Amino acid sequence: MDCPVIDHRGPEFAALTHEILEGLRPVFQTTGQVVIFPSSGTGAAEAALVNTLSPGDRVLLFETGHFSQLWRGIAERLGLKVEYVPGNWRRGASETELENRLAADERHTFKAVIAVHNETSTGVTSRIGALRAAMNRAGHPALLIVDAVSSLASIDFRQDEWQVDVTVVGSQKGLMLPPGLGFNAISDKALAAGRNATLSRSYWDWRPVLEQNRAGFFPYTPATNLLFALREGLRMLHEEGLQNVFHRHDRHARATRAAVQAWGLEIVCEDPREYSSSMTAFFMPEGFDADRFRAIVLEHFDMSLGVGLSKLAGKAVRIGHLGSFNDLMLAGTLSGVEMGLRLAAVPHRDGGVTAALRSLAQEVATEQPIGS
Amino acid sequence: MDCPVIDHRGPEFAALTHEILEGLRPVFQTTGQVVIFPSSGTGAAEAALVNTLSPGDRVLLFETGHFSQLWRGIAERLGLKVEYVPGNWRRGASETELENRLAADERHTFKAVIAVHNETSTGVTSRIGALRAAMNRAGHPALLIVDAVSSLASIDFRQDEWQVDVTVVGSQKGLMLPPGLGFNAISDKALAAGRNATLSRSYWDWRPVLEQNRAGFFPYTPATNLLFALREGLRMLHEEGLQNVFHRHDRHARATRAAVQAWGLEIVCEDPREYSSSMTAFFMPEGFDADRFRAIVLEHFDMSLGVGLSKLAGKAVRIGHLGSFNDLMLAGTLSGVEMGLRLAAVPHRDGGVTAALRSLAQEVATEQPIGS
Amino acid sequence: MDCPVIDHRGPEFAALTHEILEGLRPVFQTTGQVVIFPSSGTGAAEAALVNTLSPGDRVLLFETGHFSQLWRGIAERLGLKVEYVPGNWRRGASETELENRLAADERHTFKAVIAVHNETSTGVTSRIGALRAAMNRAGHPALLIVDAVSSLASIDFRQDEWQVDVTVVGSQKGLMLPPGLGFNAISDKALAAGRNATLSRSYWDWRPVLEQNRAGFFPYTPATNLLFALREGLRMLHEEGLQNVFHRHDRHARATRAAVQAWGLEIVCEDPREYSSSMTAFFMPEGFDADRFRAIVLEHFDMSLGVGLSKLAGKAVRIGHLGSFNDLMLAGTLSGVEMGLRLAAVPHRDGGVTAALRSLAQEVATEQPIGS
Amino acid sequence: MDCPVIDHRGPEFAALTHEILEGLRPVFQTTGQVVIFPSSGTGAAEAALVNTLSPGDRVLLFETGHFSQLWRGIAERLGLKVEYVPGNWRRGASETELENRLAADERHTFKAVIAVHNETSTGVTSRIGALRAAMNRAGHPALLIVDAVSSLASIDFRQDEWQVDVTVVGSQKGLMLPPGLGFNAISDKALAAGRNATLSRSYWDWRPVLEQNRAGFFPYTPATNLLFALREGLRMLHEEGLQNVFHRHDRHARATRAAVQAWGLEIVCEDPREYSSSMTAFFMPEGFDADRFRAIVLEHFDMSLGVGLSKLAGKAVRIGHLGSFNDLMLAGTLSGVEMGLRLAAVPHRDGGVTAALRSLAQEVATEQPIGS
Repeated sequence: MDCPVIDHRGPEFAALTHEILEGLRPVFQTTGQVVIFPSSGTGAAEAALVNTLSPGDRVLLFETGHFSQLWRGIAERLGLKVEYVPGNWRRGASETELENRLAADERHTFKAVIAVHNETSTGVTSRIGALRAAMNRAGHPALLIVDAVSSLASIDFRQDEWQVDVTVVGSQKGLMLPPGLGFNAISDKALAAGRNATLSRSYWDWRPVLEQNRAGFFPYTPATNLLFALREGLRMLHEEGLQNVFHRHDRHARATRAAVQAWGLEIVCEDPREYSSSMTAFFMPEGFDADRFRAIVLEHFDMSLGVGLSKLAGKAVRIGHLGSFNDLMLAGTLSGVEMGLRLAAVPHRDGGVTAALRSLAQEVATEQPIGS
Repeated sequence: MDCPVIDHRGPEFAALTHEILEGLRPVFQTTGQVVIFPSSGTGAAEAALVNTLSPGDRVLLFETGHFSQLWRGIAERLGLKVEYVPGNWRRGASETELENRLAADERHTFKAVIAVHNETSTGVTSRIGALRAAMNRAGHPALLIVDAVSSLASIDFRQDEWQVDVTVVGSQKGLMLPPGLGFNAISDKALAAGRNATLSRSYWDWRPVLEQNRAGFFPYTPATNLLFALREGLRMLHEEGLQNVFHRHDRHARATRAAVQAWGLEIVCEDPREYSSSMTAFFMPEGFDADRFRAIVLEHFDMSLGVGLSKLAGKAVRIGHLGSFNDLMLAGTLSGVEMGLRLAAVPHRDGGVTAALRSLAQEVATEQPIGS
Repeated sequence: MDCPVIDHRGPEFAALTHEILEGLRPVFQTTGQVVIFPSSGTGAAEAALVNTLSPGDRVLLFETGHFSQLWRGIAERLGLKVEYVPGNWRRGASETELENRLAADERHTFKAVIAVHNETSTGVTSRIGALRAAMNRAGHPALLIVDAVSSLASIDFRQDEWQVDVTVVGSQKGLMLPPGLGFNAISDKALAAGRNATLSRSYWDWRPVLEQNRAGFFPYTPATNLLFALREGLRMLHEEGLQNVFHRHDRHARATRAAVQAWGLEIVCEDPREYSSSMTAFFMPEGFDADRFRAIVLEHFDMSLGVGLSKLAGKAVRIGHLGSFNDLMLAGTLSGVEMGLRLAAVPHRDGGVTAALRSLAQEVATEQPIGS
Repeated sequence: MDCPVIDHRGPEFAALTHEILEGLRPVFQTTGQVVIFPSSGTGAAEAALVNTLSPGDRVLLFETGHFSQLWRGIAERLGLKVEYVPGNWRRGASETELENRLAADERHTFKAVIAVHNETSTGVTSRIGALRAAMNRAGHPALLIVDAVSSLASIDFRQDEWQVDVTVVGSQKGLMLPPGLGFNAISDKALAAGRNATLSRSYWDWRPVLEQNRAGFFPYTPATNLLFALREGLRMLHEEGLQNVFHRHDRHARATRAAVQAWGLEIVCEDPREYSSSMTAFFMPEGFDADRFRAIVLEHFDMSLGVGLSKLAGKAVRIGHLGSFNDLMLAGTLSGVEMGLRLAAVPHRDGGVTAALRSLAQEVATEQPIGS
């Protein structure tokens, strides 16, 4: 990223654009279109909606946590009607519930189903493949819009296989760059829907981007240095191999849960099928304030744990384990939590880190005895 | 910019936000509010409109060049009615024309006047103070929205004195950072107008930004590393002193024009009062293709000159002289143009660089004879 | 470090030199002279000798480990006569032995005593204050030359109080920069000795350096970018406070030993008074190859442990804990060792990391209970 | 350079060493050995002497300027006997003089001939090939030691063809990295001479370096980050192509001389065959102080011109044009000089930059007329 800005209308830039777009597609596991915005992930969310929907359209959205709430706000501010399926923030979106609701919608008034793949606020991963299967069983034509901000390039995500219509992503998670870029991966069905969509759109309009991207350019001044960083991030992902990246995150998540369970603390996610591989949230014991705990860890160990968001404020602590992250960084992270628990006199059992190390070591390889 | 990302909800980040917002105000010459978006400058343009206007509102926009055209497109796509005052791309917005049109609008149907302060496509600077005076003479209550993308922090711009209601800026010009941030400076009148504005807004909504900024945070994931760069850019501006920055750009512009005139080529801007201090555009002689000229300069001297945009495509060449730029960089730039003219066999007189050096040297200081 | 090179004969450079030299003195705890060379630490060792001694001079050197051996080689290649006091590599230099040898040297044939403050190869710290006291008791005028490569700015080192005549340091340890700079801190007595010293010296000659440093320059082209890094390193040290830096290293060393002892492994250093605060070495159990262990840790956890040097090759493993290093980095480091022990099937008890965390947490602060 | 330090005893480091050594050989145009020291160029000069000579050996050295004086000092301080052939600082080493002196030395008391390839203080390049031919004609077995600090990788230098025995180089010129590395390229004859050489040597001893380099390591802690920079510099040189690099420097030197001559000022170098392609020195007119001129240029244009050294102090100004340098940077440089001449009221004719641009443009390519 630390390079001079280049002319965004010159030949060197065109090569950059083409390399990036080629590199992004396999990360989304798609052969379709990917669009990049200079924006945060919420910008990409807005783009997903204004490019496909019209004022007053109904959308079905699952309450899975803080980020599903943000989606609700965005959709409502843009003039959509949101059916918000309630949830307890400890479970992912329910495919049964989805099938029932769609089946009941005989007139196909729902124009889109919106789901957060990995709820960063809870560490719960909704099973998008199962949701898609439910939609297909219901024979419902709604678009499937998925927030993959904290899953893409960390947790297996399959745009084409799961027939996702619009995927929404930000740059600052699995892609391993600073925040500042938003992404949409787009199905042909979504592109077609866009032709009749009437929500007003200018900055977020996919069409001029797709058109200018063909020659390697953008209809606005692109965030060149973040694109340099993206090129590097994509090279790193492809060098490691996407399956290896997923496997690494799975291992780290298992080790983190081993630690939390050894401490005797409660993981927010209730269903082991929905454990997140990029983030683990756990509850502070009743009567212990999560924010004071986080402040102690920050002060003494210079580590920022994730704040409990909205309903979980003060109650849950979040441990991120995604992106450019390795075993020893995870061990250091968990060590900071364990020492924080001790310093803050939070009731817990020692040995969380030891449990995590056991988990990590036994998965890394079979033993390689060196004794003579 | 080349620093690790920090927690955007932590205390270190809050200090960063406060320093930046404090540093930005004097650059806009305002004591009011400034809002930052992760976006290009066109995003900030969209933000200016959706926060203050309602569907069907009339806006008065002056055709000054390519960027005024872009504004027209944005406004129309958002559902506004644009009165586009025609222009020849060689003059800035006319205060007489403005006064007449506003005076004729007795029912105050124009809700906003939009002007591009410095037309990057032509090197013509509209005199915003004169436009404001015309609005005041006409007694018209329309908002004044100004695009200062390529003027802020290069050319004197006075938000408060000129009663500008919304200023639109990007990060990649006078602020000296990579592209990726958009800015709005906002008057109280614009904030008040926002309360009744009904264009849909979510990502661009000023209100949550202003509210969270008070504590030093943002309602979305901010582009942290660009904010690091912004902090540094602001420190550099204040260290040099804003008046010195303007003076430096004025000197460079005068030297550039001295070169163009010495070459015997024609400057696009017709009115010396409107010469831009951040960019100079000149015409290729009839029968000489500006793009082929630019390609030769790029190939042989690794320098990207500005492309002629829209109506000026193939006809004009643009020399940027703004941001982190000094006398010898300008001399190198003009040397590249002079050698390019020679290589491309474009009819011209030698000595443009010599004229520029004379201009620069005589302005830098009085002679300091060292002879004994 | 990542800045453009500046003119090493210009005013900006002079200011850099002065800031650095002022910043270095308190780090050596001296008010005397400090000289910087573009060289490795071994270069600074050679400089210490050629500036103070003459061919055939006798020097008294303690065998404390690999680096004392290197000193022997350097001294002998330069034509000095080395009395090498044998040691078992598990103890520091003995003040009793020193006093006896000096007392027996009635004709004062020893011109210098050389000691390694912190033996990087063994993790044993010689007590320089006690050695100086022994020299004083013996009333012997030999110079005291100390290798502080891996102690300075990590372990308390007192040039003036301990009357050290020449201190030898490299840039890549406690000063926290890349390798490439060597340092000598010099007493008046050493400067005086230099007047009669006849070992040939040109590059290493202190005199032109001291002379040109007065104006802020160097008699050769200095390694400017490493000096930029040094300026930053010194600012960091002074911001944290030297006593806090020592305290941090002491804490980390105690935690590391707690881990090694919990694993049931043997620390190389035999005398607790001589435990190193910057590096801990421990033995692999009999029959287990340290290099194969290190290779496994490198392969699986991307961590380079220190190789066993010379006599300890294949037998000992070294854990560095110095410089820009914090609690969680130490925890990650020890976790890598613990997982490596498991993977390599080295007999050990679990819980080393847990012991280290307990040690760290109990020293960081008293408990701050957050329960209601 | 801006990368984390890696383990200098690990496999990644060995690959770095091998790539660098492979990349260096063609730059010296040798198939022989190259040795790298953490040191300035003067360190590499010392290394050249102590590895090949014995106390009291006679060396023949040509006075070509300041750097030949430095060589004299180094050689004398190390105990060599220097025959210093006087010169006027405006001519290179004379092959006739060399042949005569060597022919007269029937007993072969000269053990080495030392010549500075490109005198950085004067902008005069000695013709090493002609010197070698003279030595061969004289049938004299002395070693040929060449200082190529400011010529290597800028001016054609042929270690093997010219049978140079030891070449001395620093990192901060044609190799395009910061200062801090010294280099020796070594012939077999020099290696053989080293077996009987008795000057004391430890740090500078080639033998342990050559031995450890075979496995990719160094006998001391190497300056890793400068080696990273070296790897990049070598890649850049090979990407451009060595002949193209030489050609570029030749063009820039011709353009610089065109400017100096157009200003009506006098170039220090008297013989056009000896014009330097990496540096041009010119005299200030009588009665004008070069240092005051340089100070004016620094103050007003932030450009550091080379100081006149030793005999040329206050009289000459040096313009460097080597390394990572392009046409527009040269144009900017010459513009700074031209404006400085004007500001300082130094008698001169305008048009130096124009002359340089003409020279550059006519050499870059044939005209590419774009007119229709």
